[in-house]
Amino acid sequence: MSVRGNHPVNMAKPSMFSLISQNGTPGATTITQASQGHRISNLNPNYGTRCNNCTCSPGLLSRNKRSSMYLRRMISSNSSSATRNNNRRSSSISSIHSPNNSLPTSPRRGISSNNIDNANHDLSNESIEICKDLSNLNINTSLRLEKIRNLMEKSNLGVYIIPSEDAHQSEYTSLVDQRRSFITGFTGSAGIAIITRELTSMNEKPEGLAFLATDGRYFTQATNELDFNWSLLKLNTPNTPSWEQCAVDHAALLSLDSGNNVNIGIDPKLITYTQVLSIEKLINDKLLENPNYKIKLIPQRDNLVDQIWDQFEEIPIRQFNPIFKLDDKFTGETTQSKLKRLNETYFKKYNSSTIILNALDEIAWLLNLRGNDIEYNPLFYSYLIIDDINHLMLYTDNHKRFDDELKRYLKEINCELKNYDDIWFDIRKIASKLNSEKKKILLTNDSTWKIVNCIIAKNFIQVDSPIKQMKEIKNKVEIEGQIQAQIDDGFAIIKYFAWLENELINKCSFISEYEGSMKLLEIRETLPNFKGLSFETISSTGSNAAIIHYSPPMVGSKMINPNKIYLCDSGSQFLNGTTDTTRTIHFSEPTIEEIENYTLVLKGHIALAKLIIPNDRVTGFQIDCIARQFLWNKGLDYMHGTGHGVDSFGPVHSSGVGIGFRAYCNENTIKKGHLVSNEPGYYKPEEYGIRIENMVYLRELANREGWLEFVTTTTVPYCKKLINVQMLSNEEKEWINEYHAKIWKLYEGKFERKSNEWLWLKRETSSL
Amino acid sequence: MSVRGNHPVNMAKPSMFSLISQNGTPGATTITQASQGHRISNLNPNYGTRCNNCTCSPGLLSRNKRSSMYLRRMISSNSSSATRNNNRRSSSISSIHSPNNSLPTSPRRGISSNNIDNANHDLSNESIEICKDLSNLNINTSLRLEKIRNLMEKSNLGVYIIPSEDAHQSEYTSLVDQRRSFITGFTGSAGIAIITRELTSMNEKPEGLAFLATDGRYFTQATNELDFNWSLLKLNTPNTPSWEQCAVDHAALLSLDSGNNVNIGIDPKLITYTQVLSIEKLINDKLLENPNYKIKLIPQRDNLVDQIWDQFEEIPIRQFNPIFKLDDKFTGETTQSKLKRLNETYFKKYNSSTIILNALDEIAWLLNLRGNDIEYNPLFYSYLIIDDINHLMLYTDNHKRFDDELKRYLKEINCELKNYDDIWFDIRKIASKLNSEKKKILLTNDSTWKIVNCIIAKNFIQVDSPIKQMKEIKNKVEIEGQIQAQIDDGFAIIKYFAWLENELINKCSFISEYEGSMKLLEIRETLPNFKGLSFETISSTGSNAAIIHYSPPMVGSKMINPNKIYLCDSGSQFLNGTTDTTRTIHFSEPTIEEIENYTLVLKGHIALAKLIIPNDRVTGFQIDCIARQFLWNKGLDYMHGTGHGVDSFGPVHSSGVGIGFRAYCNENTIKKGHLVSNEPGYYKPEEYGIRIENMVYLRELANREGWLEFVTTTTVPYCKKLINVQMLSNEEKEWINEYHAKIWKLYEGKFERKSNEWLWLKRETSSL
Repeated sequence: MSVRGNHPVNMAKPSMFSLISQNGTPGATTITQASQGHRISNLNPNYGTRCNNCTCSPGLLSRNKRSSMYLRRMISSNSSSATRNNNRRSSSISSIHSPNNSLPTSPRRGISSNNIDNANHDLSNESIEICKDLSNLNINTSLRLEKIRNLMEKSNLGVYIIPSEDAHQSEYTSLVDQRRSFITGFTGSAGIAIITRELTSMNEKPEGLAFLATDGRYFTQATNELDFNWSLLKLNTPNTPSWEQCAVDHAALLSLDSGNNVNIGIDPKLITYTQVLSIEKLINDKLLENPNYKIKLIPQRDNLVDQIWDQFEEIPIRQFNPIFKLDDKFTGETTQSKLKRLNETYFKKYNSSTIILNALDEIAWLLNLRGNDIEYNPLFYSYLIIDDINHLMLYTDNHKRFDDELKRYLKEINCELKNYDDIWFDIRKIASKLNSEKKKILLTNDSTWKIVNCIIAKNFIQVDSPIKQMKEIKNKVEIEGQIQAQIDDGFAIIKYFAWLENELINKCSFISEYEGSMKLLEIRETLPNFKGLSFETISSTGSNAAIIHYSPPMVGSKMINPNKIYLCDSGSQFLNGTTDTTRTIHFSEPTIEEIENYTLVLKGHIALAKLIIPNDRVTGFQIDCIARQFLWNKGLDYMHGTGHGVDSFGPVHSSGVGIGFRAYCNENTIKKGHLVSNEPGYYKPEEYGIRIENMVYLRELANREGWLEFVTTTTVPYCKKLINVQMLSNEEKEWINEYHAKIWKLYEGKFERKSNEWLWLKRETSSL
Repeated sequence: MSVRGNHPVNMAKPSMFSLISQNGTPGATTITQASQGHRISNLNPNYGTRCNNCTCSPGLLSRNKRSSMYLRRMISSNSSSATRNNNRRSSSISSIHSPNNSLPTSPRRGISSNNIDNANHDLSNESIEICKDLSNLNINTSLRLEKIRNLMEKSNLGVYIIPSEDAHQSEYTSLVDQRRSFITGFTGSAGIAIITRELTSMNEKPEGLAFLATDGRYFTQATNELDFNWSLLKLNTPNTPSWEQCAVDHAALLSLDSGNNVNIGIDPKLITYTQVLSIEKLINDKLLENPNYKIKLIPQRDNLVDQIWDQFEEIPIRQFNPIFKLDDKFTGETTQSKLKRLNETYFKKYNSSTIILNALDEIAWLLNLRGNDIEYNPLFYSYLIIDDINHLMLYTDNHKRFDDELKRYLKEINCELKNYDDIWFDIRKIASKLNSEKKKILLTNDSTWKIVNCIIAKNFIQVDSPIKQMKEIKNKVEIEGQIQAQIDDGFAIIKYFAWLENELINKCSFISEYEGSMKLLEIRETLPNFKGLSFETISSTGSNAAIIHYSPPMVGSKMINPNKIYLCDSGSQFLNGTTDTTRTIHFSEPTIEEIENYTLVLKGHIALAKLIIPNDRVTGFQIDCIARQFLWNKGLDYMHGTGHGVDSFGPVHSSGVGIGFRAYCNENTIKKGHLVSNEPGYYKPEEYGIRIENMVYLRELANREGWLEFVTTTTVPYCKKLINVQMLSNEEKEWINEYHAKIWKLYEGKFERKSNEWLWLKRETSSL
């Protein structure tokens, strides 16, 4: 605070902050006065906040991991072998190699340490004891900050920025990449840490401020997890600057303070060049404001967190697990053919035949390879350089994980295997070679600053990744795979719902949300081609269903209340496709309000499913309201997107297409072959939550070229007792009846006649 | 072509064009290979084209003026007194002072010179003869180009850009500002001329290329009007560069050609600073591409066209017509109060109390003054500087047009009257004064380059105009005024439709589209507070209705065919509000297809009218599809926006709010008090066109704070015989019946019982 104290004059400046104390946490503050850029945009002022409550579409990571992340932090800080221990049971893809595949089938009362072992996603036996106590997880970060600031002094930094992304800008990250989480103690998925260092401090210990910037989803969690060292920057709230602005403004203060140059440091591997440009613009605006400011953004090669991490806990080890070839019968297109298309469309268009890829999903898709380095994601750490389509270079570690057959395959596609860290030298080499030929390199918009910095002559063009765009358009085989995957996954969900109703209503058993999610997993594990979950299952009863990103903790999750709404959002990774399904059900007597609001959500869900749109002309941003209109007419809404893209046996969220009010949903038009979710909802805090989610793909109308229909692939019935038929139009009623008839036809033969499941399905699919 | 011919090597470069000949016009060409910027955006690739077919919302000017513009060119090039002659009859506001207010009431066969005189919008008696022959209007521009290129040589320019906007970025411009039209011979409203000059030419006469860049609305017209000197740049068509790119690429060519610096000149008064920044970015990208390029964009103070214009025709004289105060009973808010709000919200927010306004509609609204300098627009040429809210400076010529009372009023609001051209000196003075006080000037995004150049210290912040944002939100009095204006205007339209049906069906008269529009005007002129039309009336029969921006020429317009669809889009300027109404009607037996498509358009129109939206959270870009969904479901669409903002006794198009797929519709959220049109349509080329347009304003729901409903102010019945009731839901049927019942109640007493009009209205408003 002293910085500000010394400069009452500066307080008046628009770029300065006034700090107000927040919820008693000493020193915990919120920045309340926004600083003004040179050009002020006023687009959707409120949407910022709204959109950050979004859980579907990229950012949803928030809705899982929270429980497991607590555990992991504990484990990694207490057990040296935790993350390497392979004798473990997991719901993630990492489990597919595990020999022990049995799960208790009878409902469990309470959780035994054995159950925990079975259930935990990443646990070693020696760490089980820890899990029993999930309290006291908060960390005092004083010493960590002191050490960081000492390193900042050595590197002559006034401000240091710690993002939460990994070097591949992944949505889901491994423990080893959770640096921001280590330094702040805040375990949420989204957030950026900004640490400042007093340049004029007289004290022995280094001084400064520390800010954690996060969005609406995490204000409460951050407030609980952050200690007194940290100020919470509530992003997208009125008069709060962006984290970039916060960093620049404080650098400016420090510079006025000391009269010295102030360097803002950041690990160039972890931030995109696009972000760097926006920070540099803010710095330039600052300098225009007052020539006395001396601020510079510099790439800080050695990550400061990595240098101190092991002084507090063993640094988790990056996984480089076995890689396997995904058969063409699942991919529908060979890598050679993908490269040919890349060459004919994009390389010709951009007049360049060299591109650098750092997004793991794009590399996996292009090479038809899959791995297992990140939970829920069949991906592997790597970079790829396409020098031209006849010369690829794959940069990844642990080459042992490529068996001979795989190495032969790489030869076939002219892909050279290189070490993960050789990429930097090679970029320099290739870039300067191309420059001498007056040629350009293609970079994707996700390219990191470090990649750009290797291109000294700046002979690059930055484009929306062609591979991302190609990947979003599913081919015939991928669509068929998606349909089959949904049929298999639907079978498991139906079986689970029938089982759950029987347990709760007929057997009057106590089933916890967590046990429910485990039972569903157990059923899924019997399915063909099943490789694990695509995200942590959301199994929530009553008011928990209103917490959009809730997932039941292994220990202490609620018992499912048969008299309340139950929301289950879950998905699987199959070799032939990735699924993501949400159903909201009720086991006894829903209230009139619950029925009315469920029906409003369902009407929006059907309106989108029935919509016809022109091919390649509208974005998901433009049709989002189709799913909201009925809720809007009652003054209701949901604060998350309506749909997100899904890969084929890849991440459950792809950013190439989406339906919603976020900016990314307006970047690409919706095209034939796109695969997205259709998941409107409604949430009444403290009471209940409703979400209905199907996967849909875009198919051209047989009789009308250039026009697309949404085709639903999910095959799980809606909850009949939550539907008010009076509120439906005849068309809507017909649509549901046809959908249910199709489901009955699909599964009736798969269940023993008159069995529980058979009866449940018959009832739920009988016509309205 | 020689330039390109000389550089086969450059042809390969992405920034070079290949030219293909087009429709036989020698030399007329289309640029087919796009050049790549450093960062390539791929948003809505197709929408560019679509959106430029848009006629509603800014850009609609295209749908009027075409006929009158031909005439004007003729007149101004033949008559010295045309534009100054005041003894004329006009449908524009300019006519309100005219003594002669009578129009022949009986339908006319053919057009007498007297009718022409009555009808023409800007005609002097001595020019009548000219109007009889509208053929041979095309101009050979060779000499004009030669003289321009000579001036370019004097000013050391390689490229000269001639935009179509005036110094106030007006949508509607006066003759004196139609420089691009003079130099190209192309009379369409939208288009930019780019003229290049060979630096190495050996010939006596200067050589070079000439490009006219325009959008899809004008390809045909431009092809017809341009002579062999011009190449047509078809904007937003595949592989066609933007006009900015075209200018920069050719400057680059010339520079390589000559090895010299190449200056791109443009009149800084006529281009916004925002556009300049985008051109300068393209230049910088070019220089990165190849350091041998030497290109510079320079502000060319003396407009080259103005220097040669009078060598070909008398330069039209800028109108500075009388100005009048709009009574507070119409504005609902005093200027003092508007300034106070400006100060409390925006000036505080931006920490500046000085703003420069160049948009005429904003100045008129803020000062509660109206004028008559531009046809259809009650505006007056001026600039306004708010030094602080207690010191305004209004820059305009002909101070005689302010009577003493008006001058007293200006004193009251602390507004100093200055000469139009003094603005430039004053900006310099004020800017440097503020700079010494370390203060900033606010500029709107419409600010021209010339304004910015006067601010040497660059101590400005550019913002979306606060005045525009305030103006868009109508107050109680403006809403009431709008409602009354619609009631009055609706009376005229109903009376006209009843008259027209009677003439066509009962009397079997021949009525031309143009005579129809004149009859409608004649009725309107009897209305209280009527000040003229808000745009040239669209009165189109059969296939003409499919030409979205059709307006009937005074001479040779079609006879209205009672067996075909008739589309009438028209609006008025009243002291209490501006109107814009479209109805599509049929006098006998419409086809099943016409009925089905009319009903689809109507369903979309009603869906938007019934929609509820959250206040200040969604843009018009996000709800546009609500009006399209029913057409989409049949694979049909309309290529213009769904709605545009409308001022109160101001321009019929305001850019602060809109519903559609154009970028501007996504800039501001829709707020309580916004007033927009609701006008979906469908057009079958060569056959018929359908458009249904009401005005609607946004009102907060009585029982739900933060939620808005659209309230329809237009009161003209839909065409019952074009509605297929089977295709309507009960809610839609009810909505129409209530609407029609309200209209019947409003007007039944205003017409003599059993009269034509009374019977027509009774029939058209009887319930479905």
